[in-house]
Amino acid sequence: MSFNTFGRVFRFSTWGESHGPAIGAMVDGCPPGLPLTEADIQPFLDKRKPGTSKFTTRRREADEVRILSGVFEGRTTGTPISLMIENTDQRSKDYSEVAKAYRPGHADYAYDAKYGFRDYRGGGRSSARETASRVAAGAVARLVIPDVDIFAYVTEIGGDAIDPARFDASEIDNNPFFCPDRQAAKRWEKLVDDARKDGSSLGAVVECIASGVPAGWGAPLYAKLDSELAAAMMSINAVKGVEIGDGFAAARLRGEQNADPMRPGNEGNPVFLANHAGGIAGGISTGQPVKVRIAFKPTSSILIPVETVTREGEASDIVTKGRHDPCVGIRGVPVVEAMMALVLADQKLLHRAQCGEG
Amino acid sequence: MSFNTFGRVFRFSTWGESHGPAIGAMVDGCPPGLPLTEADIQPFLDKRKPGTSKFTTRRREADEVRILSGVFEGRTTGTPISLMIENTDQRSKDYSEVAKAYRPGHADYAYDAKYGFRDYRGGGRSSARETASRVAAGAVARLVIPDVDIFAYVTEIGGDAIDPARFDASEIDNNPFFCPDRQAAKRWEKLVDDARKDGSSLGAVVECIASGVPAGWGAPLYAKLDSELAAAMMSINAVKGVEIGDGFAAARLRGEQNADPMRPGNEGNPVFLANHAGGIAGGISTGQPVKVRIAFKPTSSILIPVETVTREGEASDIVTKGRHDPCVGIRGVPVVEAMMALVLADQKLLHRAQCGEG
Amino acid sequence: MSFNTFGRVFRFSTWGESHGPAIGAMVDGCPPGLPLTEADIQPFLDKRKPGTSKFTTRRREADEVRILSGVFEGRTTGTPISLMIENTDQRSKDYSEVAKAYRPGHADYAYDAKYGFRDYRGGGRSSARETASRVAAGAVARLVIPDVDIFAYVTEIGGDAIDPARFDASEIDNNPFFCPDRQAAKRWEKLVDDARKDGSSLGAVVECIASGVPAGWGAPLYAKLDSELAAAMMSINAVKGVEIGDGFAAARLRGEQNADPMRPGNEGNPVFLANHAGGIAGGISTGQPVKVRIAFKPTSSILIPVETVTREGEASDIVTKGRHDPCVGIRGVPVVEAMMALVLADQKLLHRAQCGEG
Amino acid sequence: MSFNTFGRVFRFSTWGESHGPAIGAMVDGCPPGLPLTEADIQPFLDKRKPGTSKFTTRRREADEVRILSGVFEGRTTGTPISLMIENTDQRSKDYSEVAKAYRPGHADYAYDAKYGFRDYRGGGRSSARETASRVAAGAVARLVIPDVDIFAYVTEIGGDAIDPARFDASEIDNNPFFCPDRQAAKRWEKLVDDARKDGSSLGAVVECIASGVPAGWGAPLYAKLDSELAAAMMSINAVKGVEIGDGFAAARLRGEQNADPMRPGNEGNPVFLANHAGGIAGGISTGQPVKVRIAFKPTSSILIPVETVTREGEASDIVTKGRHDPCVGIRGVPVVEAMMALVLADQKLLHRAQCGEG
Repeated sequence: MSFNTFGRVFRFSTWGESHGPAIGAMVDGCPPGLPLTEADIQPFLDKRKPGTSKFTTRRREADEVRILSGVFEGRTTGTPISLMIENTDQRSKDYSEVAKAYRPGHADYAYDAKYGFRDYRGGGRSSARETASRVAAGAVARLVIPDVDIFAYVTEIGGDAIDPARFDASEIDNNPFFCPDRQAAKRWEKLVDDARKDGSSLGAVVECIASGVPAGWGAPLYAKLDSELAAAMMSINAVKGVEIGDGFAAARLRGEQNADPMRPGNEGNPVFLANHAGGIAGGISTGQPVKVRIAFKPTSSILIPVETVTREGEASDIVTKGRHDPCVGIRGVPVVEAMMALVLADQKLLHRAQCGEG
Repeated sequence: MSFNTFGRVFRFSTWGESHGPAIGAMVDGCPPGLPLTEADIQPFLDKRKPGTSKFTTRRREADEVRILSGVFEGRTTGTPISLMIENTDQRSKDYSEVAKAYRPGHADYAYDAKYGFRDYRGGGRSSARETASRVAAGAVARLVIPDVDIFAYVTEIGGDAIDPARFDASEIDNNPFFCPDRQAAKRWEKLVDDARKDGSSLGAVVECIASGVPAGWGAPLYAKLDSELAAAMMSINAVKGVEIGDGFAAARLRGEQNADPMRPGNEGNPVFLANHAGGIAGGISTGQPVKVRIAFKPTSSILIPVETVTREGEASDIVTKGRHDPCVGIRGVPVVEAMMALVLADQKLLHRAQCGEG
Repeated sequence: MSFNTFGRVFRFSTWGESHGPAIGAMVDGCPPGLPLTEADIQPFLDKRKPGTSKFTTRRREADEVRILSGVFEGRTTGTPISLMIENTDQRSKDYSEVAKAYRPGHADYAYDAKYGFRDYRGGGRSSARETASRVAAGAVARLVIPDVDIFAYVTEIGGDAIDPARFDASEIDNNPFFCPDRQAAKRWEKLVDDARKDGSSLGAVVECIASGVPAGWGAPLYAKLDSELAAAMMSINAVKGVEIGDGFAAARLRGEQNADPMRPGNEGNPVFLANHAGGIAGGISTGQPVKVRIAFKPTSSILIPVETVTREGEASDIVTKGRHDPCVGIRGVPVVEAMMALVLADQKLLHRAQCGEG
Repeated sequence: MSFNTFGRVFRFSTWGESHGPAIGAMVDGCPPGLPLTEADIQPFLDKRKPGTSKFTTRRREADEVRILSGVFEGRTTGTPISLMIENTDQRSKDYSEVAKAYRPGHADYAYDAKYGFRDYRGGGRSSARETASRVAAGAVARLVIPDVDIFAYVTEIGGDAIDPARFDASEIDNNPFFCPDRQAAKRWEKLVDDARKDGSSLGAVVECIASGVPAGWGAPLYAKLDSELAAAMMSINAVKGVEIGDGFAAARLRGEQNADPMRPGNEGNPVFLANHAGGIAGGISTGQPVKVRIAFKPTSSILIPVETVTREGEASDIVTKGRHDPCVGIRGVPVVEAMMALVLADQKLLHRAQCGEG
């Protein structure tokens, strides 16, 4: 069932609300003997941390992770790894209004419809704050797949896309947008700042590439690598679309254009002349880079009034005060990377379970 | 783990290869007392059946389903429902060549890399023939959600899209493309036929709508309705992208454009003035129609030679003879509908488990 | 959830009712490349088959298994293995009375209370006929653990126990009771025959030993090897008790008596001087033989009238006509062996998933 | 997979080592709206708490539970409930010796064999300290089944059994042994104290009864109520045997003795004239009290030297110093009750998922 658990062998569960005392993750099924300390996790949390530029929320969270179990003398023991992050900046007063009326685009109404009531403080369980737990768990997952290199970046904000010809991976960490195109990053400064000043918000497209994945991970038919990635990415707050490889563009190609021709390579492995498939065929990795694209909708919390109804069913308008990201997609980058790591770590162990080390 | 099982409460598992004696599905967790006979399943299989027009493969399969268990005196008993479809048209000779070389775009190489060898006859387990099992299981799922209306249609073939202004649901079953736009259907006849004559293939986009879903189905955080739908759709052969609601287009909207404003409605339920969200917020249904779009790549089996390598690692060219769909997306329509039904039936029971009937 | 599925990596699901057209099992997660034909499974089914002596039911079933998927050119492919056994001897007339009144000790009333109605023919899904599916799946499981030797035997029937001093493994297959004590087997002939003539039935105790299990299988805390074995055995029809190692007798020992002292052994592995623990400590195998004891209640189907109520709630008496085993525990032996194999195969793969081959 | 998770709908996962900073449980799938505060959990932890008499370990743990998530304004929200208990009394010095040599009867060797190393402080993950997390989770489970009354008691210590004729439920909480027979409790004082003074330990048998369980919980075939209970109980530290109803004694009855005759009762429900079955038939509850018996081996930690080997494979003797329970079965009582509650809460929701509210 696992309402709040993801994965098959390398599994993680998250818990916690935006304004409760803490949030956390429990990682189960991690192989024993891997070196792990808080210092291995913290940099990933810092990358996701709010308050680092004016293009993200100015809410501040220390986001310091504690390992409460599963590590002994600096190595994983094979038992559950409990990770906890205390919530330090909880300004409940900012959120008092949302107790009464539903914010369109948020989970407010859906939670009330499902559960009868909800923890309305900062979005409660539906807050993107939960993604910090994923990022912490993802840092552990990376230890399981040391030969895999994962990186994500923003390719589009508010409809303004990067120029693929200007793609420069070394630029990604040089700007507050995780943008691989220096010129686009420049343009986005104004774009995002304008949206912020307008009290509005923007959507974004994030791309994630994992190289070093060997051929053979993923399993037919309902544990396919692409199916798992789709579930993983779609579970992230604000995500509305997922593409593998060429995605929707593949639907516009002819068969011969979409084929990834193969040539003999080294050590018996073929070389592929293209990667329309995004590194996955029949749900199984081919040895090419695994490539996923994710669409983030614009932040639902905006200062522009939207028509809504109250819990009592009366017409109202709502404005979501508080300190919000003008573009949630930006801080989605480390979350996307974490989900990629979590899926791949799980699939590696799943493959090993059935087929041995290979 | 469940390599070949999907679902949490209402679960189905499929088995069988393209050219084995039979394929089948086992449905577990179905509520007891629902009227069910083979005649309730057969029409859905007939809709998916090959050989119904020149725009689909001319391979012929009777696709007659047998219920082997779980039904007594015409009603489901609550025990596993075993469904079997015998494979009748197995021309193994058509496939002898693929034993030697890998067909780009197919799972051939990935299966070999994973398992060390593969059942190469007709794609074996990776064949789209498996989707017949899903369609059969999906017919059972529909019994669990009698108040939900599900229908899918093709909105685009080979880059040629329907005109939304011409959308007419009553047209969908009037043409061999499940196309809701009569003019587009006309154009596609030539488009698909040309591709077929060229020995090429085309991709497609399918849209699926489920109306009548009450608010409250789906569950945070890793059993979200949209996450489950993404996994379900991405597990279908040839699918490379999934969108919920506006999907990637939402990434190009501003927050106030993407909001679905709410107004007071009847019986305490709000009315939404838009449905950018595709009926899902925070992973939970809102009571609006659930809307999913799916990208199918062009059929990988084409008569145009593609560069490849043999199992022994030598360079070669391959042409996939046999009787193939020039556009697999078309016959994907009943499969998409089945997956929608399967996810929703499961989520209904999952919701009932935690929250009661409501 | 998996109402009808057992296992974590090596999983099997069973379907089918006593008097439906067929019963079957689907095995998922089996490693690829293992040689498998029907002839590898049939001997195990023959061992369980009814009608082989007057001490078991005289009902006759051919119990011929067919492999419908998952095997290609004589080897497992890694995809689901579908196993089907047709039901050939269905004398529905024998069971017409049970439609009206509940047989005490059977699942009749419980099924009606749960599902609202039931397939009353031969016990439907609750019939011990289902165990044929387990035996078939268990034969596949044995291929996964070729170095493990599993055998079970009856130690007690109707309160008459074997003399441990007379234990002779080579006797087990020399009598119709799977009894390792030749003298006890002699006594049981009369005991069981008398019970049969009286229209009564007897309980039994079965012991199962698996040697060759390496140290390290099983996992804390809710996938413990002993916990899995307990669940597996208790799921068999008519089982009411499970013991690991000394079981309840351990509760009567003092700590120093119950300790299994260790001495240095070969190749760095310790030698144990006793095996009170039954080969499991902390839920993980120790390298000693894994030992389980299982209590079977007497067959509930007897010719002696028992007070009961009808479906309409009226007082009645019931006699269960038909051809029943006077002691179900006897035919439980191959089922117990199958469950042992299924649990160990699963735990081997589970261990490999987390800890590698080792 | 769920190495450290138990349950299907109402699931709980535990984490933490004996001498780490804390232990905890995450409860997922709990219905929303149930009143819950720390005060609802604490009494159950206090019942299990060490240091309450000289018959249990004199180690002292405050065992104060904190709810970190899943509760808002005093009610469960339907999201994960994170429970944490800090470890306060960690005298690591007591355990330094066990780092070098394996304690027979403990998981030391098995953990090393599985994981390559282990957290040896106080048994690490294999310590019975983990059961505090279960007791905390069990307290939440009880809220889900308010109409079910669960109580357990010790029926036997060191082979000295209670006299069933003297059974008096009101005595259970009047002595430090949870003993329902006042005279047996008297005898046990000397028995347990003698064992403690000898540096030895004793086993025990615990019985648990749940009344108020309606007919219909549990599900064929691998989610049977008795199978789940067996798994749950066998997962508790030191448990070596589980019986449902008459258990092994049923194997010594004849069919007519073991039948539970039925008579018409009130409101259409039958009355049973006996309960040999322990309230379960065909894996489904019958409406009678559910009855389970559990065998606890004697505590493995004793002051009497036992032969063992060191990690380096050399012969040695070991004595387990420290403050240990002379009879772990005693403090097993609240743990058994917790597991009963956890299984029943889960089965209630599982039944509701498939069959609705009933």
